[in-house]
Amino acid sequence: MEFLEELRFLKEQLGFRETIKDTDYEQVVIAGMGSSGIAGRIFQELYTKKPVFLIDDYRIPEFVNSKTLFIAISYSGNTEETLTAAAAARERGARIATISSGGKMCKLGDENVLIPRADFQPRAAMGYLLMPLLLSFKVSTEEDLKRAYALLSELDDDNEECKRHADAIWKAKSIPLVFAASPFRGVAYRWKAQFNENAKVMSYANYFPELSHNETMALAGTYKKDMFYFFVLGSEYANIRRRIELTEGLTDTSFHDVALKGRSLTEKVFYLIHYGDYVSYHLGKQKGEDPADWHIVEDLKKKLAEKPQ
Amino acid sequence: MEFLEELRFLKEQLGFRETIKDTDYEQVVIAGMGSSGIAGRIFQELYTKKPVFLIDDYRIPEFVNSKTLFIAISYSGNTEETLTAAAAARERGARIATISSGGKMCKLGDENVLIPRADFQPRAAMGYLLMPLLLSFKVSTEEDLKRAYALLSELDDDNEECKRHADAIWKAKSIPLVFAASPFRGVAYRWKAQFNENAKVMSYANYFPELSHNETMALAGTYKKDMFYFFVLGSEYANIRRRIELTEGLTDTSFHDVALKGRSLTEKVFYLIHYGDYVSYHLGKQKGEDPADWHIVEDLKKKLAEKPQ
Repeated sequence: MEFLEELRFLKEQLGFRETIKDTDYEQVVIAGMGSSGIAGRIFQELYTKKPVFLIDDYRIPEFVNSKTLFIAISYSGNTEETLTAAAAARERGARIATISSGGKMCKLGDENVLIPRADFQPRAAMGYLLMPLLLSFKVSTEEDLKRAYALLSELDDDNEECKRHADAIWKAKSIPLVFAASPFRGVAYRWKAQFNENAKVMSYANYFPELSHNETMALAGTYKKDMFYFFVLGSEYANIRRRIELTEGLTDTSFHDVALKGRSLTEKVFYLIHYGDYVSYHLGKQKGEDPADWHIVEDLKKKLAEKPQ
Repeated sequence: MEFLEELRFLKEQLGFRETIKDTDYEQVVIAGMGSSGIAGRIFQELYTKKPVFLIDDYRIPEFVNSKTLFIAISYSGNTEETLTAAAAARERGARIATISSGGKMCKLGDENVLIPRADFQPRAAMGYLLMPLLLSFKVSTEEDLKRAYALLSELDDDNEECKRHADAIWKAKSIPLVFAASPFRGVAYRWKAQFNENAKVMSYANYFPELSHNETMALAGTYKKDMFYFFVLGSEYANIRRRIELTEGLTDTSFHDVALKGRSLTEKVFYLIHYGDYVSYHLGKQKGEDPADWHIVEDLKKKLAEKPQ
């Protein structure tokens, strides 16, 4: 029930879509780093009515102006790169919306969505970072989100399959690779980031059909292929599924398929995210890592702050 | 001198920038796979006056309409994904420009740039794929390109440093990783693709400051880190250079820095591309690979054609 209340709370705040019309802006620019940026990546694949341009850096592109809807996302509300980018967008006259749980960002926008809970690790707040985007641009209905929530609860009750993947990876000390196709590329990148953050293990994501034009040759001819553990997330499209199947055979690679679950794209996206979360969580546990330990990121921030840029 | 003639030949064809004005379109969409897509990626970082949206798939986003300048790039002119995307853009009323060396694509656009030579491997034609974009959007001057060409010739005469990297990678059978920062992210991805294609070796690219938010933790805590060979391409910005230096120390990783060379961004981009080309070429040679062998990609195309999608 907590989830449903939080959903209502978020929905009530989505002012930035009530007060402006599609014709008021030419493009959406989303600024965010790490998990906040991943929310933008996932949204970009699901919403294509207007160009969505992503920024994960300090600098904003020249085209940003009064015809831009600029959405700054930062769970903490204090991410340096995103604050810098948002301030620059403000100077260019862009319409600013923010999504955060507080910090400097929560009062910076023309509209500000406040995430109800500030006590998560940023990566655990993925749902909260993503939902305001999905709801306000009408990518997802409230019904979709409720059903997604039910699917996630199932996975909370039984994630043995995720644990088996983690056990296999841990046993061989493999480097997990995550392949996907649109609209699940952002999800594959989320998996990669979760392996990095939860398990402190190297990991990379890539996607079809682009990888057929280069990486396929490495799959067929590389040394040390047995070091990698290949995940392939389910695809919506028959021609992509056939491409994946042919690639596995032609390159003699063993893919671990992760099946789609759910009716709507919203459900599928949240299910795949949560599935990957569990694989990396179990791997981290096996490896003896604390998922909450990210002192390296904090150390870097401190060191960077020591010397003004 | 051949290069200068080819440059003139390309320049004479850049009709699509003479006949339309910036105000005629709201965004540029570039479709291209593999090397052709990489030309788009590199261009997107260098040209930010209008939003540049990249497509490396069959499907085009909903927003494509008569306000879109749609540029389809395919060296062969017969890339299935790009042809499909361009046909869909045509139906939406987009203005179409093409860059190819022939094939079905070369007559498909409202404007068509013909690359003077069709006898390269697509990836060897990177300069030709990129130059029409750089020249027509005035990112580069003819002078920049001439100077870049001189830099590349120097590297043709002496690429011992590239060979030393390749020797070290081959000796340890390492997986090369390539880190960069904007505006050289596309170049880092080019390196990755070249390792895949020339040496048939797995490789991945990533970039600062985004990687500070996740991958940094893996750099500090992963198993099997000694399997990787870390390249870091030079950065334009002092705060990014400091971030790189701190990351190396905090995570106890040994980075192999590749210094920037040249005055303009154009020169730097072409120099870094060519440098990476040589590293992967030498690695492929050591490994006994034929850079021209990409039968896996051709086999996949044939198999896909067998069964209509």
